[in-house]
Amino acid sequence: MATTIYVLNGPNLNLLGTREPEKYGTATLADVEKLCRDTAKPLGCDIVFRQSNAEGEIVTWIHEALAKSAGGIVINPAGYTTTSIAILDALLAVRMPVIEVHITNIHRREEFRHHSYISKGATGVIAGLGIEGYALAITRMAGLAGAKR
Amino acid sequence: MATTIYVLNGPNLNLLGTREPEKYGTATLADVEKLCRDTAKPLGCDIVFRQSNAEGEIVTWIHEALAKSAGGIVINPAGYTTTSIAILDALLAVRMPVIEVHITNIHRREEFRHHSYISKGATGVIAGLGIEGYALAITRMAGLAGAKR
Amino acid sequence: MATTIYVLNGPNLNLLGTREPEKYGTATLADVEKLCRDTAKPLGCDIVFRQSNAEGEIVTWIHEALAKSAGGIVINPAGYTTTSIAILDALLAVRMPVIEVHITNIHRREEFRHHSYISKGATGVIAGLGIEGYALAITRMAGLAGAKR
Amino acid sequence: MATTIYVLNGPNLNLLGTREPEKYGTATLADVEKLCRDTAKPLGCDIVFRQSNAEGEIVTWIHEALAKSAGGIVINPAGYTTTSIAILDALLAVRMPVIEVHITNIHRREEFRHHSYISKGATGVIAGLGIEGYALAITRMAGLAGAKR
Amino acid sequence: MATTIYVLNGPNLNLLGTREPEKYGTATLADVEKLCRDTAKPLGCDIVFRQSNAEGEIVTWIHEALAKSAGGIVINPAGYTTTSIAILDALLAVRMPVIEVHITNIHRREEFRHHSYISKGATGVIAGLGIEGYALAITRMAGLAGAKR
Amino acid sequence: MATTIYVLNGPNLNLLGTREPEKYGTATLADVEKLCRDTAKPLGCDIVFRQSNAEGEIVTWIHEALAKSAGGIVINPAGYTTTSIAILDALLAVRMPVIEVHITNIHRREEFRHHSYISKGATGVIAGLGIEGYALAITRMAGLAGAKR
Amino acid sequence: MATTIYVLNGPNLNLLGTREPEKYGTATLADVEKLCRDTAKPLGCDIVFRQSNAEGEIVTWIHEALAKSAGGIVINPAGYTTTSIAILDALLAVRMPVIEVHITNIHRREEFRHHSYISKGATGVIAGLGIEGYALAITRMAGLAGAKR
Amino acid sequence: MATTIYVLNGPNLNLLGTREPEKYGTATLADVEKLCRDTAKPLGCDIVFRQSNAEGEIVTWIHEALAKSAGGIVINPAGYTTTSIAILDALLAVRMPVIEVHITNIHRREEFRHHSYISKGATGVIAGLGIEGYALAITRMAGLAGAKR
Amino acid sequence: MATTIYVLNGPNLNLLGTREPEKYGTATLADVEKLCRDTAKPLGCDIVFRQSNAEGEIVTWIHEALAKSAGGIVINPAGYTTTSIAILDALLAVRMPVIEVHITNIHRREEFRHHSYISKGATGVIAGLGIEGYALAITRMAGLAGAKR
Amino acid sequence: MATTIYVLNGPNLNLLGTREPEKYGTATLADVEKLCRDTAKPLGCDIVFRQSNAEGEIVTWIHEALAKSAGGIVINPAGYTTTSIAILDALLAVRMPVIEVHITNIHRREEFRHHSYISKGATGVIAGLGIEGYALAITRMAGLAGAKR
Amino acid sequence: MATTIYVLNGPNLNLLGTREPEKYGTATLADVEKLCRDTAKPLGCDIVFRQSNAEGEIVTWIHEALAKSAGGIVINPAGYTTTSIAILDALLAVRMPVIEVHITNIHRREEFRHHSYISKGATGVIAGLGIEGYALAITRMAGLAGAKR
Amino acid sequence: MATTIYVLNGPNLNLLGTREPEKYGTATLADVEKLCRDTAKPLGCDIVFRQSNAEGEIVTWIHEALAKSAGGIVINPAGYTTTSIAILDALLAVRMPVIEVHITNIHRREEFRHHSYISKGATGVIAGLGIEGYALAITRMAGLAGAKR
Repeated sequence: MATTIYVLNGPNLNLLGTREPEKYGTATLADVEKLCRDTAKPLGCDIVFRQSNAEGEIVTWIHEALAKSAGGIVINPAGYTTTSIAILDALLAVRMPVIEVHITNIHRREEFRHHSYISKGATGVIAGLGIEGYALAITRMAGLAGAKR
Repeated sequence: MATTIYVLNGPNLNLLGTREPEKYGTATLADVEKLCRDTAKPLGCDIVFRQSNAEGEIVTWIHEALAKSAGGIVINPAGYTTTSIAILDALLAVRMPVIEVHITNIHRREEFRHHSYISKGATGVIAGLGIEGYALAITRMAGLAGAKR
Repeated sequence: MATTIYVLNGPNLNLLGTREPEKYGTATLADVEKLCRDTAKPLGCDIVFRQSNAEGEIVTWIHEALAKSAGGIVINPAGYTTTSIAILDALLAVRMPVIEVHITNIHRREEFRHHSYISKGATGVIAGLGIEGYALAITRMAGLAGAKR
Repeated sequence: MATTIYVLNGPNLNLLGTREPEKYGTATLADVEKLCRDTAKPLGCDIVFRQSNAEGEIVTWIHEALAKSAGGIVINPAGYTTTSIAILDALLAVRMPVIEVHITNIHRREEFRHHSYISKGATGVIAGLGIEGYALAITRMAGLAGAKR
Repeated sequence: MATTIYVLNGPNLNLLGTREPEKYGTATLADVEKLCRDTAKPLGCDIVFRQSNAEGEIVTWIHEALAKSAGGIVINPAGYTTTSIAILDALLAVRMPVIEVHITNIHRREEFRHHSYISKGATGVIAGLGIEGYALAITRMAGLAGAKR
Repeated sequence: MATTIYVLNGPNLNLLGTREPEKYGTATLADVEKLCRDTAKPLGCDIVFRQSNAEGEIVTWIHEALAKSAGGIVINPAGYTTTSIAILDALLAVRMPVIEVHITNIHRREEFRHHSYISKGATGVIAGLGIEGYALAITRMAGLAGAKR
Repeated sequence: MATTIYVLNGPNLNLLGTREPEKYGTATLADVEKLCRDTAKPLGCDIVFRQSNAEGEIVTWIHEALAKSAGGIVINPAGYTTTSIAILDALLAVRMPVIEVHITNIHRREEFRHHSYISKGATGVIAGLGIEGYALAITRMAGLAGAKR
Repeated sequence: MATTIYVLNGPNLNLLGTREPEKYGTATLADVEKLCRDTAKPLGCDIVFRQSNAEGEIVTWIHEALAKSAGGIVINPAGYTTTSIAILDALLAVRMPVIEVHITNIHRREEFRHHSYISKGATGVIAGLGIEGYALAITRMAGLAGAKR
Repeated sequence: MATTIYVLNGPNLNLLGTREPEKYGTATLADVEKLCRDTAKPLGCDIVFRQSNAEGEIVTWIHEALAKSAGGIVINPAGYTTTSIAILDALLAVRMPVIEVHITNIHRREEFRHHSYISKGATGVIAGLGIEGYALAITRMAGLAGAKR
Repeated sequence: MATTIYVLNGPNLNLLGTREPEKYGTATLADVEKLCRDTAKPLGCDIVFRQSNAEGEIVTWIHEALAKSAGGIVINPAGYTTTSIAILDALLAVRMPVIEVHITNIHRREEFRHHSYISKGATGVIAGLGIEGYALAITRMAGLAGAKR
Repeated sequence: MATTIYVLNGPNLNLLGTREPEKYGTATLADVEKLCRDTAKPLGCDIVFRQSNAEGEIVTWIHEALAKSAGGIVINPAGYTTTSIAILDALLAVRMPVIEVHITNIHRREEFRHHSYISKGATGVIAGLGIEGYALAITRMAGLAGAKR
Repeated sequence: MATTIYVLNGPNLNLLGTREPEKYGTATLADVEKLCRDTAKPLGCDIVFRQSNAEGEIVTWIHEALAKSAGGIVINPAGYTTTSIAILDALLAVRMPVIEVHITNIHRREEFRHHSYISKGATGVIAGLGIEGYALAITRMAGLAGAKR
């Protein structure tokens, strides 16, 4: 039976490709979704791909991943990275492998973006490697999904 | 006429009983609801019991408590405790007795959980006494609900 | 063709007029809306006027302003002022003139209200001038809306 | 055999009822003692009720509670709340249930009163619920006293 | 009888138009003065317009505004914004409406420019709206000058 | 009827004259007591003069000053200056004029001595003027003792 | 030959008596000057009494005190208390007894008023004792002026 | 011509496999080297694999990578992560793609390990994904090495 | 004539052996006393061995050591380590050799235990070497007691 | 045509030679002026040499340097080093080479002297090299004055 | 078989005896080595005694201690005390008893010397007892070397 | 006999001329060496010119300067400026004149580069004057080398 990986995207990522392209690149979120599915397929994994601007909805989707027995979560928390203890608590609660992805290297941006609450609930973090970071995360998640954190 | 007490629960509390039971215990949110109703009944109080993962929805319910002339609010803000000025402002706006409840003793947990914005808008706080903290809060609210803050 | 200005209001502003009137005054949000429309009309501008308690919804409306080719955004972020990087990122993403308005002078209130993430994404800020601050903002926005930030 | 609960009161609480009554109310410490005994009796608990202005004496009484096999300690550390590591260490040493009580909501008072060393050695905390907080603490302690922390 | 509004300008503003025009624009201080007078005239207000590089002189002019029964003060404190408690104290002492104006959005500049002592003595603040901020301030001051702070 | 002034001295002041004389001078505490009595006599005041190394005892003496209807308290809190909230609370509770005295100028000593909790409960502070500071304090207290803080 | 004491007053003190009288009292600066002269006369001291809103002028007057061989300086630095290293350096340079006076107890006011650079250059400090603090300072200075710091 | 990737390992990594295996796993540094080479080969890349306990030697190897026209650097700075500005400056100087790798998730470890100077000189960061993080880094570096940062 | 060494023990050390033995070991305070006496005897020193929960009593004993011409003080300040300026001042006042001993390595415990005021008044510090730390301190004190600090 | 270099000296430097000579040396400001002129002459530069205790006057002189087409500014801001944003802004506004000089090494003095706002507006800084620092600054300025910053 | 104790000395300790002798005394590092050997011999221990100015070399020697099955490490990290996480990690990796020694009492020196990363990897710490601290450390290490941390 | 001046250069300075030339210029380290020798020759001084990426090696060279009776040290500590207490201690130990040189004005760069440990061990500092700063340092050192610090 195929392992399901939830790929959750935070606020403003729906604008990807049009939003500050000199910073985030010109690929759209649809391109990211395709990259994720293309990476997952040969690894025998299914992808549930979502985006929301609402913190509470992301919390609910993390619960859904547990309810649907997902193998792991890849999350780009975007603007909720440095502020959301609610998402952190959700990730801690569901006890499954989590990889946090950032398209840009948040440590080279404004000071207030350097801190991440999400990292305290993640297995690992990938930042600054562009949208290819999603593909790396899914590759690694396929390995982690068997062995729970 | 019976006094109505709103009991509002923040993000991830819907997972109670399954979420890190070594920390939060094995009682479910349904158990908490029953405990609240059982405590309120002999005190002649009605309970409105809610849970949401969305900060904005909790703000709206606090407004509703005012519109419905509730006698007071018992709130477990969970992950929004240390970050939500929106909920704090709602509590300050409705000017009714508020008791903040935490199942665990947040002061013995990670440093970032020690601070609470909600406390600045609450009449009082009960933390670390397990789900029984809800019962204590309702008992006390029955007394406070007559005299506005 | 008329320029459209989005006027977005954050959490608890729906209670305006009843909420701590000694601090926020007795005018209601409907009064504010009327003031905005009355100010905009002779300037040849249309107003889209909204209020939400939900951070994510405000993010979405900012995206909508872009999609609808609005000329600018006047925003009173209320309780999300000091905490929302998601709203900041939305404002940075849409790249149009933004004026942040606060009814009270936040710099004379509690320490934690002095900081604003929103200001980092705004063209300018007006605070402490009562609801008339909205009128000043719209007056200025009419001038700014032609020349993009 | 009845469970004994130690109720320990810190500095200046002997002035209760006369000290800043607009902040602490008009009930005296004798009233608090009576409230504690009245609450404890139907729960089958004995109360040892003490007040001291001396940090060292409070430490010694905590040791006494251990020596006398008390079931738990309810403590209002008053002015030693934010400064006494000696009392914290005593509470950690005796390893029995501890409930910290504050008559006022310390989180709405001066910044320096927000922090409590005692909370790190307490099972739970009740603050801001007036002298009724003692009654709630004793009610809960009756339940905790059977199961050691 | 016409209301007099003092418009006080702090250090280096005499260089306006030549000083870092990419940041402050090309309008000169004479242009600002004309804008202020043009705005005030139809509102039935007189303008006293001054600039000084000396902190003490600005303090003295604020006292003069009181002695001359001015209706309010519009002040761009420039380099004294973040350091002058003497000016803050003068504004607090004269107890009349005060609007603080900044040509640039100080919250998007260097960290040390984000803090303003002057704001603690001002009715309101306008920042980042260019020299038009002076016109908005005078418009609003005309309304405020009747009702003392 | 003569006004009574309590002169309370904190820890280690019993060593005055022998303790680091290059810092505290060669006068002994008995000399200070004589200076206080000599100053008070022509002003028609009685002096109660005490020294203790114990924080709790100083708290109790402050209560005693209230019980004995003293006109005011002159206190050199010494080592408890920067740490004792218990003494601060006692001073706030008794609501009488309080003058805090330090023999040395604490602001020219180690950083950790610059802060004083006692000052928050004192009418005024005299520091760095040697033991003559006690005489100045008593002179001023004679004036204050009539009019409560 | 009479000893001369310089009494220097900082910004806004010229408004004394009219400025926030509930905080600073109703005595005017002329009253303070008279109090200083009346106190100095029987001690055989002359008074040079000055007020300025300008930091640099106060620095210059401190130099003048040295040039005129004054016996000491009593200074109420007002708004320059927490910010002026220039005045601190002047006081350190002239090496004569200095007493810093504040009419109010600055430690009970806003946080930013608690710190004083001037104290690092002063022999001693008197705060919160009203304008009588000037009289106490002159009394003590008469004793200090013989023995240089 | 094959692209060369430098893989540089910081202090104590020579103990890998024996050092705190519950934290770092049981694979040795030789295993890591093999994994790197195995990953690089099908991508047409050569690996230069080094380990040093000396900060200066790592700086020198980074210079060597420039001199040898390497395509990029994968670096696990270990104990020098949070302290070495010398290594940061070297990375900034050589201006080639850099991926920082940590075996553990440093954001879930002690507070002092959360900060990384190296990240300010890196294209991207991979943390917490075990030694497989090296393989992901090399995979991504193969893509980056063509286009210089 | 034998040198006398005061060995002073702070709060809760009377519980040694029963208090958190996994942290402090199973030796009792009587065992520590015996170890001290056994170590001192062959060195020709007498031991005065005390324990108190009261800060003021420890201050008084330090004074006593001076009065009794003790050769030095070995002190385990326990819970007063990080908070007692009164004890620090006493140690500074008596000007004799002082060795501060901690049974555990306070630098590996909670953050708030890392700081010691006592160290500023001590000749040296021994921490983390178990109760044997007392023996080492006495051995060294025998050498120091001849030459005053 | 000769290049003009403005040499501006801040507060208290008029006392040079008499002020704390163990720290600042015995040369007077006249000696410094002579040294500057002697250094400038063979380099073909003119010197305008000024000293003021007033922050605003220094700001004005910096503007004058621009108006007079000076080649650069050598400034010893003295007591305004760590506090004057007004002087910083003036230096940024005139956009010419600026060298900041301190006679002493401010980094070995009190903590509060380590920070300099002026450095943010200076081309370079020379500190701790005595009055010879002025000569070095003028030597270097002769080179810089040709090529604007 | 004899236990081997590594005694490792950090940067600048080779200058011992000539370097600031008023602070470090006149004994040379050779004297320290002799003291160590003399102390170890009767305890049946061998000493490996080293000094290095290079952080990396010290890391390597700690690894060597593990490889050579040493019983423990006595380390005076000198200038690397407050900065070296590499040495800390090495000590944590080798899992043997470690005693950190400082000749001076670092807590009475400059603020930046109070913190030690090494202490987090040490069994215990001895500071301020002169070079005799090495002898005490070796004495204690002989006892610890049998039982691993 | 000629005075020898050690000129020591820290990590990455070997890349000078190629490393970020827009920041550091195009002169190479060989050019700097030539500039130093050319400046020293007419002053009758010899130059020992070194560069190292290793902190320990720089420490050792400072010791060598003492052993070789050098007259002073000119040091550009580069990346070790803000982190090396080992180098600071070496400079303090050798007690000879030291001038710290930075090519760029470190106070206008990233926040973390503003602090220098080396300055606490230096006679003076020159920053931001390009490689000419070396020449100025050597000129001044020739004067200082006679009179020891």
